[in-house]
Amino acid sequence: MASMATFFTKTSYPTHSFPKTYNAHFAPTLRLHVSLGSKKKTNQRLQISCGLIEPDGGKLVELLVEESQIDGKKREALSLPRIKLSRIDTQWVHVLSEGWASPLGGFMRESEFLQTLHFNSLRLDEGSVVNMSVPIVLSIDDSQKHRIGESSKVALFDSKGNPVAILKDIEIYKHPKEERIARTWGTTAPGLPYVDEAITHAGNWLIGGDLEVIEPIKYHDGLDHYRLSPAELREEFTRRNADAVFAFQLRNPVHNGHALLMTDTRRRLLDMGYKNPILLLHPLGGYTKADDVPLNWRMKQHEKVLEDGVLDPETTVVSIFPSPMHYAGPTEVQWHAKARINAGADFYIVGRDPAGMGHPVEKRDLYDADHGKKVLSMAPGLERLNILPFRIAAYDKTQGRMAFFDPSRPQDFLFISGTKMRTLARNKENPPDGFMCPGGWKVMVDYYDSLVAASNGKVPEAVPA
Amino acid sequence: MASMATFFTKTSYPTHSFPKTYNAHFAPTLRLHVSLGSKKKTNQRLQISCGLIEPDGGKLVELLVEESQIDGKKREALSLPRIKLSRIDTQWVHVLSEGWASPLGGFMRESEFLQTLHFNSLRLDEGSVVNMSVPIVLSIDDSQKHRIGESSKVALFDSKGNPVAILKDIEIYKHPKEERIARTWGTTAPGLPYVDEAITHAGNWLIGGDLEVIEPIKYHDGLDHYRLSPAELREEFTRRNADAVFAFQLRNPVHNGHALLMTDTRRRLLDMGYKNPILLLHPLGGYTKADDVPLNWRMKQHEKVLEDGVLDPETTVVSIFPSPMHYAGPTEVQWHAKARINAGADFYIVGRDPAGMGHPVEKRDLYDADHGKKVLSMAPGLERLNILPFRIAAYDKTQGRMAFFDPSRPQDFLFISGTKMRTLARNKENPPDGFMCPGGWKVMVDYYDSLVAASNGKVPEAVPA
Repeated sequence: MASMATFFTKTSYPTHSFPKTYNAHFAPTLRLHVSLGSKKKTNQRLQISCGLIEPDGGKLVELLVEESQIDGKKREALSLPRIKLSRIDTQWVHVLSEGWASPLGGFMRESEFLQTLHFNSLRLDEGSVVNMSVPIVLSIDDSQKHRIGESSKVALFDSKGNPVAILKDIEIYKHPKEERIARTWGTTAPGLPYVDEAITHAGNWLIGGDLEVIEPIKYHDGLDHYRLSPAELREEFTRRNADAVFAFQLRNPVHNGHALLMTDTRRRLLDMGYKNPILLLHPLGGYTKADDVPLNWRMKQHEKVLEDGVLDPETTVVSIFPSPMHYAGPTEVQWHAKARINAGADFYIVGRDPAGMGHPVEKRDLYDADHGKKVLSMAPGLERLNILPFRIAAYDKTQGRMAFFDPSRPQDFLFISGTKMRTLARNKENPPDGFMCPGGWKVMVDYYDSLVAASNGKVPEAVPA
Repeated sequence: MASMATFFTKTSYPTHSFPKTYNAHFAPTLRLHVSLGSKKKTNQRLQISCGLIEPDGGKLVELLVEESQIDGKKREALSLPRIKLSRIDTQWVHVLSEGWASPLGGFMRESEFLQTLHFNSLRLDEGSVVNMSVPIVLSIDDSQKHRIGESSKVALFDSKGNPVAILKDIEIYKHPKEERIARTWGTTAPGLPYVDEAITHAGNWLIGGDLEVIEPIKYHDGLDHYRLSPAELREEFTRRNADAVFAFQLRNPVHNGHALLMTDTRRRLLDMGYKNPILLLHPLGGYTKADDVPLNWRMKQHEKVLEDGVLDPETTVVSIFPSPMHYAGPTEVQWHAKARINAGADFYIVGRDPAGMGHPVEKRDLYDADHGKKVLSMAPGLERLNILPFRIAAYDKTQGRMAFFDPSRPQDFLFISGTKMRTLARNKENPPDGFMCPGGWKVMVDYYDSLVAASNGKVPEAVPA
């Protein structure tokens, strides 16, 4: 339930001071497909001067094979035992291939899986700790395990039969589904979307190893140009000469409360002395539950928000975060924050009940709305990240716009929940002026129109955002 | 399922090297009731020379009020809102009061509770991390919360109406039972013993704060002299001039496989160059499930094992660990290990499936038998502790004694499970000669006899150990 907006609030939990040292020697590991022209040299000089936050483990792990090796790796893949990837598996290959989960070099082996479940973090060989809160694992069933036999490598194929990657030095271990679910979600109640989609019917084994990705994952949905890798985002922030990057994770349409928060964050960072804070507006693009607004509609809506001037394109980078959504609340918000460190963000905005949802069985929220920001502020491996919590904003009827909620005059404020927003759009009613830019609102109405058209007038009831 | 015995095995998981530095300045915080005589001075000199492992957080936290304050605190307690402690609550007050959970200074506040659930560890103010894997919390119900109102302190009373402690600077927060259970046990299946006993019917709120314990917790069961506090154990190890302390947690009768392991551990520590390794034989004395052998019978059995010379009293300290049992496998084994650091142990022996049990609903073990030692070897805050894993031993029919299992001649070995052992004792049959010392075995038979006598011949079937 991504909350409506805004304003920083002082939290009683340990907050993080600003990074004490910028690493002047940082240079990102460039994608191997990127040619090393003069532009890159300029970037490196800029990077040295502005110092983006270091990736976890000190180095962005990218798993794409060199261009010259692609043909050889494809031939090798055809000779290996095969695993067919599901849609979510492919999204994880994408995530891993670009280093969002750095320093993870492939699907988790058992030691990484157990550390993730029990500690939400991984201890590296030299003793330092990085955050890692959701298992990034690949499951196989008994017959696949049998077919793999003693092979030390397997090939991963997409649904069309193309070789996507090779997993090497593999380790096969038991898939303790119940324990994985309980420790990741804090419940085993039936009806968790990711569990239903990717775990319940998955195989009884997990297979970990080092990943060699043969070609970049593309979706050919007209949105691939929005899918910047962490290295590409780092290049972009460097090109813009950013001295602070603040990330805003979202999976809902942007309304003016969100926008208020983001512009206010930039103002505050300027007040703190930063010269050019850049916003990473970073909608999640992987698997989402059926009643969320689909990615293509959300991107249309975000485009309108920028067109309408609600956010400043000069200081905003819109990109898609390729991870699938767990809806695992305080556990998942750590993953969302950690991945953005790898993309160069040193500030992370967190709202009420991040990555939360309704309890699938009981009539209550699954997570305490405050646990997400509390857990995030204490999470191992995220000490370098500046957590920016914010409290509720609402529609101020006296001003006719979204504003920071003022508890001294509650009667002046109107709270428009995600459910309310969707109901209005579905019924082609307008929200109060100033709630969302008109272009963005029209996208919402069009989306619900398209649902009605597709289902002969029956639109499934949305659950709260 | 505490495994039968023994022998170290090389694990593929990160094992810990021996402590790199001994802290020559370590001096335990003595119990405030202990007089500072000449004996103590001697101890301190010895401690400086032999250097026991430092307690977590650098200092043993003891929560007993000074003797001169007892009367005043009792009067104060009578004036405060009251919470009546359950049997398990009282055991936790005991645990906290003596510093087993150092640096924890009382029942957990929400930030500690959340860190325990998510990270199995606590970050201290100066940035270091200590292990803390099981929530040590006190629950209250709605009416108790209402009665406490705005008070910043409450008094904790035992079942007889005596004031036990004062909890101050209290924080009351929601008790998310389902999430607590899921994250601690990795399941929410009905029938978990600790959950049934202490959580299901507990109140919807938790109350944390700083504990002032008015008088040491005593049980008056003839075993209090075995209940040495961490400070007393440290004094004892120092008196014996220990230069290594290896802890063996158990909640079952000791058989010769266990004994073989313990004597072999000492031999290996001597081989490594230690001059005087001391064994802490440390049966758990708090809450256990109904079909475990009760503490008083286990202590009788352990006494016989020492009398019969199976273990050397010169190099063995037998004491009772006052914690209640969770049966939470890999999560709980960390607590068992961490608490022993606070008592001065720098080596911890871990077997198959520590703190495990059968799944309460499905026909399988609740935990993978190897996860306990793997999780323990990677646990944050336990890096200083040397983890000593061991593998199965069994009864060697060719030698007529318990021996390390030799996989090249499996036919020579007889595995005697906990269930088998209990069945034999219940039926007054003898195990093979050399399985357990005769005095110890007689205690087992007597125990099951006492059950038969108490229940007119009907003995409940034991579940596997």
